[in-house]
Formats: sequence, C-alpha cells, structure tokens
Amino acid sequence: MYRKPEAAKIQELRDIAHRLRIHSITSTQASKSGHPTSCASIAEVLSVLFFNTMRYKLSAPRDESSDRFVLSKGHAAPILYAAWAEAGLFPISDLQNLRKIDSDLEGHPTPRLNFIDVGTGSLGQGLSIGAGMAYVGKNYDKASYRTYVLVGDGESAEGSIWESLHFAGHYKLDNLCVIFDVNRLGQSEPTSLQHSMEVYRKRLDAFGFNAIVVDGHDIEELCRAFFEAEQTKGRPTAIIAKTFKGKFFPNIEDLENWHGKPLGDNSKEVIDYLSSLIKNKGALNLSPSSPIDLAPKVSISNITLSSDPSYKLGEQVATRLAYGTALAKIAASNDRVIALDGDTKNSTFSEKLKKVYPERYIECFIAEQNLVGVAIGAACRDRTVAFVSTFATFFTRAFDQIRMGAISQTNVNFCGSHCGVSIGEDGPSQMGLEDIALFRTIPGSTVFYPSDAVSTERAVELAANTKGVCYIRTSRPNTEVIYSSDEKFVIGKSKVVKHSANDQLLIIGSCVTLYEGLKAAKELEGLGINARVLDPFTVKPLDRDGIIANAKECGGRIVVAEDHYREGGLGEAVLSVVSDQRNIVVKHLFVPEVPRSGPPTVLIDMFGISSRHIVAAAQEIMKL
Amino acid sequence: MYRKPEAAKIQELRDIAHRLRIHSITSTQASKSGHPTSCASIAEVLSVLFFNTMRYKLSAPRDESSDRFVLSKGHAAPILYAAWAEAGLFPISDLQNLRKIDSDLEGHPTPRLNFIDVGTGSLGQGLSIGAGMAYVGKNYDKASYRTYVLVGDGESAEGSIWESLHFAGHYKLDNLCVIFDVNRLGQSEPTSLQHSMEVYRKRLDAFGFNAIVVDGHDIEELCRAFFEAEQTKGRPTAIIAKTFKGKFFPNIEDLENWHGKPLGDNSKEVIDYLSSLIKNKGALNLSPSSPIDLAPKVSISNITLSSDPSYKLGEQVATRLAYGTALAKIAASNDRVIALDGDTKNSTFSEKLKKVYPERYIECFIAEQNLVGVAIGAACRDRTVAFVSTFATFFTRAFDQIRMGAISQTNVNFCGSHCGVSIGEDGPSQMGLEDIALFRTIPGSTVFYPSDAVSTERAVELAANTKGVCYIRTSRPNTEVIYSSDEKFVIGKSKVVKHSANDQLLIIGSCVTLYEGLKAAKELEGLGINARVLDPFTVKPLDRDGIIANAKECGGRIVVAEDHYREGGLGEAVLSVVSDQRNIVVKHLFVPEVPRSGPPTVLIDMFGISSRHIVAAAQEIMKL
Repeated sequence: MYRKPEAAKIQELRDIAHRLRIHSITSTQASKSGHPTSCASIAEVLSVLFFNTMRYKLSAPRDESSDRFVLSKGHAAPILYAAWAEAGLFPISDLQNLRKIDSDLEGHPTPRLNFIDVGTGSLGQGLSIGAGMAYVGKNYDKASYRTYVLVGDGESAEGSIWESLHFAGHYKLDNLCVIFDVNRLGQSEPTSLQHSMEVYRKRLDAFGFNAIVVDGHDIEELCRAFFEAEQTKGRPTAIIAKTFKGKFFPNIEDLENWHGKPLGDNSKEVIDYLSSLIKNKGALNLSPSSPIDLAPKVSISNITLSSDPSYKLGEQVATRLAYGTALAKIAASNDRVIALDGDTKNSTFSEKLKKVYPERYIECFIAEQNLVGVAIGAACRDRTVAFVSTFATFFTRAFDQIRMGAISQTNVNFCGSHCGVSIGEDGPSQMGLEDIALFRTIPGSTVFYPSDAVSTERAVELAANTKGVCYIRTSRPNTEVIYSSDEKFVIGKSKVVKHSANDQLLIIGSCVTLYEGLKAAKELEGLGINARVLDPFTVKPLDRDGIIANAKECGGRIVVAEDHYREGGLGEAVLSVVSDQRNIVVKHLFVPEVPRSGPPTVLIDMFGISSRHIVAAAQEIMKL
Repeated sequence: MYRKPEAAKIQELRDIAHRLRIHSITSTQASKSGHPTSCASIAEVLSVLFFNTMRYKLSAPRDESSDRFVLSKGHAAPILYAAWAEAGLFPISDLQNLRKIDSDLEGHPTPRLNFIDVGTGSLGQGLSIGAGMAYVGKNYDKASYRTYVLVGDGESAEGSIWESLHFAGHYKLDNLCVIFDVNRLGQSEPTSLQHSMEVYRKRLDAFGFNAIVVDGHDIEELCRAFFEAEQTKGRPTAIIAKTFKGKFFPNIEDLENWHGKPLGDNSKEVIDYLSSLIKNKGALNLSPSSPIDLAPKVSISNITLSSDPSYKLGEQVATRLAYGTALAKIAASNDRVIALDGDTKNSTFSEKLKKVYPERYIECFIAEQNLVGVAIGAACRDRTVAFVSTFATFFTRAFDQIRMGAISQTNVNFCGSHCGVSIGEDGPSQMGLEDIALFRTIPGSTVFYPSDAVSTERAVELAANTKGVCYIRTSRPNTEVIYSSDEKFVIGKSKVVKHSANDQLLIIGSCVTLYEGLKAAKELEGLGINARVLDPFTVKPLDRDGIIANAKECGGRIVVAEDHYREGGLGEAVLSVVSDQRNIVVKHLFVPEVPRSGPPTVLIDMFGISSRHIVAAAQEIMKL
C-alpha cells in the first residue's frame, strides 16, 4: 500500500533535484563541454531514485545485492555523478573534474568508476543491459534487487530499445523498471514524437509493459509511480515521464539549440534562480536505503570441461558441433555458465546446453542487438559466464553493442558459426566474411579460430576463463579431427601441424583453409617444394614469435589463406606481426568479392582459397 | 470502391498459389536445401500481389514506374522466383537451377537477378529499404507506383523493423504497404508472439499504421486488404496475415522442425495433394497490370561541385565542415542529390544541404539501421544519389545493413564524422576507432580519408560519381588547408606532401596524423633524419604503386600513424600493399586501447599517435 512521503521529504527531494541541476551546470562549465540541459530534465527522477526508491550500499556501489541503475542516455553523466556525490560516495568538489584527463568522471559513464556497471553513450543500449540484469535477478539470483534503466526519448527511436522492451515483456521481468525521459528535444531538432505521451503509452502497453505517464518533474507522482512499479507483478513497468529539457533554466527550458552546450554566460543567472528554489539550505537528512536481502555468492572462476574432448583422430566433426558439446560440458562444471542465442540454436548448437540445462539457456529470438546487450547485462557484477551465439555474420548487427562491451569491460564470450564461403548454398547474406575484422578491432579481445573439434572444445574452456571479449569462430562443414584429446592449447600459441627439416615456405590457415593448406603441402611435395603448415589457434593475440621463427626457418616466405574478406582478418593479422621484419614476404589468399550460392568445395575453389590456389601462391612466392 | 474479384479469378489466384507451392517444393528438392515451408505460408500473398494487385512491366522488371516488391524474409526466395516465372519473366524450368553455382537463382535474392532491387536474407532489413523507396516515390518522383514489403514474423523481432515502422508512420508513407507473414514458427522454436494477432495489431496501430488482420490464406480477404491499403491516405498500411508454415503440406503444416528443409521423401505426397487442389489445370488467364503513370526520368551521372573549393592555404577548417559545404555544392548541380542523417546534422554538417534544399534532407532521427536502409532504398533504381552521415562510430550500428548494401550493389555514400581520439572530451563511446576497418571489409568499397578541406570537397564529388559503397571519414577538429583549390584528386592516388632528395623514411598519415607526421618530419630534420610524408587520400583502394615506390626511395622504411585501432585501418592497409616486398619494414602507430575523455591534443599524445611518437618510431625504424 502506497504511503505518500511527508511534505518535508518531498521538499527535500525537490531540493536535491535542484542541487543536482546546479552541479550539472557547474561541472560542465568547468569542463567547457557537456550536456547540462539533458541533465536538467531528469533531476527529479534521479533525486527520487537515489534518495527514495532505490536500495543500495554506498560502501560497495556494485554490490551484488544492490539495485541496479543504468543511465542509457549516457550524455547525462554529470547529473548521475552528482547524484552519487550527493549520496556521499565521493566529495562533491570532485565533480569539477568532469571530463578532465586525470579524472574518471568522463564525458559518458564507464566502469572505470566503481559505481558504473557498463559504459553508455552510444544510445539505445542501456535497456538490453538492464533486461539482462533483471533476467539474472529474477531467474538465477532470485533476489529482491531491482533494475532501473533511464532511457531518453531521442534514443527510444533506436530499434534496439524495442527489441529490449519486447524481451522484457515476453519474460515478464517485473523486477525491471524503465523510465522514459520524454523531454521533447533531440540534438538537432525536436524528436519525432515530441510530447505525444499517449503514443508512448500505447506503444509501451502494446509491448507488454505496465505503462504509467507521469509529470517527470513532480516528486510525488514519481514516488508513487516507482512504488506501483515495485508492486506490479507479471510484467515490467515503464514510467513515461513528461519532462522539459533544461527544466528550471530560465530562457533555456524547452528551447532548441541548447543540446550539448554548457550554459556559459547564462550559468550565473540560472544557478541563482535554482538556488532560490531550494528551501533546505543545510545538510541532507536523506540517505539511501539498504538492500532487503542478499543475492547469493557465486564463483565464476576456474571453469573446466567436465570431461576431456573425446574424438578419434581423423573423425569428421564440425567445429560448430564441438562448440555445443563443450558448452554443455563447461555448464556441467559451473552452474553460472549460461547460453544465449537468437533463434539459431539448432545451427550454432548452443541447443546442446539447453537440452541439459534448459533454465540456463536464454532464447532472445531474432534480435541480435538485444541478444548481445542482455548477455552483457547478465555478465555484470560477475553474476554469470555468458556465451552468445548466432551466425558469425549476424554479429555485424551488434557491432556497436560489442564495441561498447569493451568500454563496459565485459567478459562476454561470443561464438559465430557459419563463417565464410564454406557454408555453401545459402549464399553471401549468411556468410561471415568480416567477423574476424569486427572482433579484432575490439580492444582487449581474444579471437579463437579453432580448426578441429578438440581445439574448439579447448577454445570454449579458455574463453570461459579469459577476461575481455572472447570470440570463437566456428564453421559449418565437418572437418577432420587432427589433435589428440590431450593436446594442450594456449592463447597466443600456434601449432605447427606439418613440417620438415628443409621447409621452404610457411602456409598459415585456419579450419577449412588449414586443411586446404595441408592438401597443398602434399601437392607441393610432389613438386619438390617443402611447405610447413601452421594453425594459429588464436588470431588475436596472434603468435608473433612462433610465426616469425617459423617463417625465418622457411626462407621468409608465408602463404596465408583464409575464408574471410581481405581486410582485418587472419592475413592482415599475420602482416601486422611481421611488419618490422625485413626479408619476410607474405602472399595472402582471401575471398575477394561478394560470393554466391553453390556447393562449399566449389566456392572455396571459385573464390581463391583452395589447395590449388595455395599451390599457385606457393610457386609464386618461391620466386620472391 | 472495392469490387470483389469474380469467383473464377479468385479460383485462379488460389490455383496459382498452389502452383507456387509446388515450384517451391520441386526447386528445393533439386537443390537439396532451402525453405519450402517458409514459402508455403506466403503463397496466397504472392499470388494476389503478382496477379491481382501490383502494377509492373514484365519487359523491364526494375522499371522506374513499376511497383516495388521487397521480400524481406529472403529465405523464401524460391517462391518469389516462382512468382516471376509464373508471371512469364523466365521459363519455369529454370527454377530447377535454384542455388546452383551457375545460376543467379541463389539461396537468398540478390540484384544479380534483373527483378531484384536489393539483397535480403539478413533479416529485418527489407522494410527500411521499402520505406526509402516509398519516400522517394511520394516526395521526389511523385508517381503512383507503390511499394510492398513482405516481412516474416520471426524477423519482426528485429528492432530495425520498428525503426522503419516508426519512420514510415512519421512520414505518412501511404504508398507503402507492409505484409506481416505471421506463420507462428521460427527457425528453432515458435516465435515469441506465435499467433497473437491482436498484439501485432495493437503494436502496428500504435506505430501509426492502418493495421488490418487477415487470414493470409484467403485470397479474397487479401484482395480486399490490398485494395484498402491503396485507398488509405495519410498513413501506411500493415496487412497482418495469419498464416501457417507449410500450409497445405499434409503432416508438415504448422509443425516444428521443418524450417529450412526440403521435403525429401514427403514431397511426392505433398505435391500430389497440392495438385488435387488446383482447379484450372491449363494455362493462366491472369497477367500483371501495367503502371498507371510514368515516373520521371532522372540523371544521376556527372555530378560536380557547383563551385571549386575556396580556401586559403593554411586556413583552419574541419573536414566535417568541408563535407557539408561540398554536399550543398553537389546538390546545387543535381536535384537528385539527397542527404540523410540521424539527428546529428549539426555535428556532421549535413545540415548545410538542408539549409538550401530542405526537401532533399531526410531526417531519420536516432535510428541508424533504418537510416542506412532508407538510403539504400532511396538509391535503388538510380532514383537518387544518397549521402548518409552520422558519427563514424555509429555506423557500427548499421554494419549489417552496409554489408548487405554491398550484396545489394548499392551506390550509397557514407560520411562518418567525429573519428578517433581527436574528438576529445566526449570520450570513447563517441570515437570512431573501427570505422575504417568496417568500411574496408565491404566488397567494392571506396574509403576516403581526406586530410584537409580541399581534399574533402573533392572526395564528396568523387564519391557521388563512384559506384559501390563510398565512405568519407571526417574529423572534428579544425585542420590546416594544405592543398590549393585547383589540386586534382584521384581515387587510389596518394599525395607526397613533403619530400627531399635524400629521404630516409616514409611517414604515412591522414588528417590529424598527417599533421603530426609533418611536425615529426620537421623535428627529425633537426635530428639529421630526412622524412618524406605521404597523404594516401583513399585508404581503399590504397595507392600501392605510390607507396612502394616512395618507400623504396626512403630505404624501405615506413612509419604509419592513424587515429584508429590497430586492426583493419590504414596501417594494415599499408601492410597489405607491401606484403610481397622484401626489404620494406613498417612501424605502425595506432590507438592501442580504449581511450578516455580529455583534450584532443593530450589524447593524441597519450594514445601514441602524436609527432613525438612518430619521431621515436622513426628513430627505431632507422635501426632496421
């Protein structure tokens, strides 16, 4: 039953809102950049959340039992920082270091700050992350903590928001509350919906939310709405707050051309006005409430395959199948291993986890942006070890989410199946030919490109224990098992799979092109050329020392073949590690254009990466 | 006023639907792969569209005046091919070549076929393209042709669909009709909404559509709904068709585990059953209707800057500003030049076009996937020359759309502003550090990275006249004008901006790092080292001959510095072109980790790409 806060408390919450506004102005004045008007529209929302509604521990801002808050509209960072400072986490004077080179109070929030779970600032991503947190809270932690996500109206045009809304509605995440800050104005013009509150309400209702329209500057309405959200079972709540950009900034409020600008000469007048609105001039009486119960302690370290790989040498097994097998095995060893997929689980074989642990599989349907965001949210605060899979090429859909994942310091693991032309008849729209390039650009990422089932299983095990974004590239066709079950694999260490004392060139390939390389090496033998063949195992980090040493033993000649476009893949990775070496030359075979439908082996040959082409390249390079 | 088709016609349309089903079965039998059940659910929709509703010319399937049809659920390609064959475009017997290596009847549609506008197969993209076509039809062509987009229910989970729905609703595209094929089953399990027709209706209504629920297998209901769509003014129509996957396939209809599988041993029984349903065994009486009026003829070739660049050497001008200036100039020379942006027009400076030609600017709000899709649609059938801009890094949001753009043979031009750490205080979420990698992977793409205002203007002019995806990378800070206004620029030709007779190393940089390179070269002079400095102008194609020749004249030593991550950018592009050269070594300076907020010059130095680091790298490389 809702009890209206006392008048004194309401006034204090109002006063805090104005103080937060003032901090947003002074900090952006100090940094000479930032978004004070975008802060002003959410001042009351933050005041109520941080000083009335949320339960959290100031002593441990990312405590597992505390409520989560995600500021999806990351450009309002100054007011978020101000709220934590007002709550007492750090001195208010620190706010003046906003955006400075030696301060972690950056232009947009990142987890360099101990009270931030994820980086935001690329719009429309916070809700999927919050949904992932809420899914874990409801289904795995089964704890009382709640998740709040603040979304700007401008960013609500992002489709990813609607993916996440659908997800949250579908899974009835009643521990999730999303607040829409409908302040009417975008960066360069009014939003398309401006203050059409009823349109927002209808849309959110249709997406399965308890949709409540409020005056976003009315403290009491907000208190009541958050209470209702907490009481609402069986569906998430959306609080649609009608607000004004630059609220309470005279001559600025609700006006265009004030996005992302400090107030400059106007700031004194505005601050004076805001100060005049503050009734309680002294110290605050309000402090955060503590969590009701404790979330379980979990351990996500030392994850192992529950049994070693068990294949026969020479057996034909697709690496994508081995991925599923390994996923189920590591899930057996740790109950916080989860899998997420976008309706491709019977192709990526993530269904193998689902079959044994259905509750640890999260079906995200065909919505890859939300898929990735949910995984990042689920992995926050070390609650789960998340493996996300879909066709390799469909991760292009979530490149921005993955990029932001690095800023968020996420440990999510990705598996992309159906790479390259070797998928065959489905044609180019389904072929991952740029996925290595994508994942290599992610700072701190590890990119596995296992060639057989044994190394794939080990890649999964290693990924589960490796910090940062991990990516495992798997292939559709069956390929030969070439490693014995007890072979050890190390990130950044390649394997020489064929060599002789008199090798004249080094062939580098992964999975289908490794086998083409082996075939080529055999043919080359017949032509009197000895070729060494190397399996990199990880494309990033790539085994620089191993490749240089082997290349030098092979006359400084490398032929690298990959089922990927030219740019950013294995070939350029090899070029990068040998860049400072005189006397190493590289011939690079890659898919040179948009491929087409056809049988895998025909395509591999047609697009220049088959043994025949490797042989020709080897003969060419012997002349260099 | 709707006139119900005569019973005979209805029966004929019904018969055609069954024939289309049979073709879908036999063609996927022949190819031993494909999605016959996904075809079966849309047989009546295609029959009515192709033989009752749409107006098009068989003699010229992509005629500018014809109705457009986009099969967003591209995996149903076999039935689309069958519809065109039944309409008489090519022999029905060709359908048996589905997915064969020498046939353009690929697994998913591509414009290699003369009746396909865009590649589909990555889900959720067709509607944005259709919306772009419809926007052009309504606002530029002002012609009567209509655009139909068929969307699967599975793919309607993609946020991009909701971006596009919002766009179409907002711009009241009443010449657009989207059909949702609600067949209840996804690839690996039922869709989240299954047959909740009322949920679809509520959502589409809330997104501004005239939403009509129909029995998707009832010919007459479909005829009526399409008629109503055509009559509905002021808003687009969504026909929400309740269908069944594998409809009329006994023991297969509406069952799971039949996605993407030919019918195999079941096919004979199913074909027999379908044949029994066909009443008219002979030739068809139906043929397509012709367009009502003609769309205007347009020319989009030989686009030029309406006036030459006019800057003073040494003037400080941001390349992003020059982009806007050039955009307005080429728009003056051709009225089919349009610009699209996602609420960043005052940062990218695409607003410069809007200011002079407001009707040729399409505001797409913060929804980058739809932004790119609309541009691809707008450029189809050579109707417009589209320039799309946003922050460079936000194109990661639309990587899948851009990738598919290459399959679609699009000529859309992209401009990404705010690249690299040089943007400063806004921090890493806003910095484009992987955009070159992204655009380099696009087959056939051209990647411009102009260093000053003059070269930027020329890049815009060249892009407008260049086939394939063009990308122009612009920077936020002001940089010096180093080229005179009459300097000629050619794609794939670099410029040496500093040289001497005795150069000992070659420095390569673009924009901010070109200037750092020039500064470094001056410092190196003081240290007795002569450095040549090269501006690549285009990163793809990169001037291989120029770089090798200059490097050879400089002792085979290259230092390349870029405001981009290590992978896939300018540095690896340079490595690629010198890969087969013994005796060329390269030192590559790049942003090595997630950057942070701070002043641009401080960041450029902190992250290792300033003149100081170039000098150090030069001294290092002199030892090699």
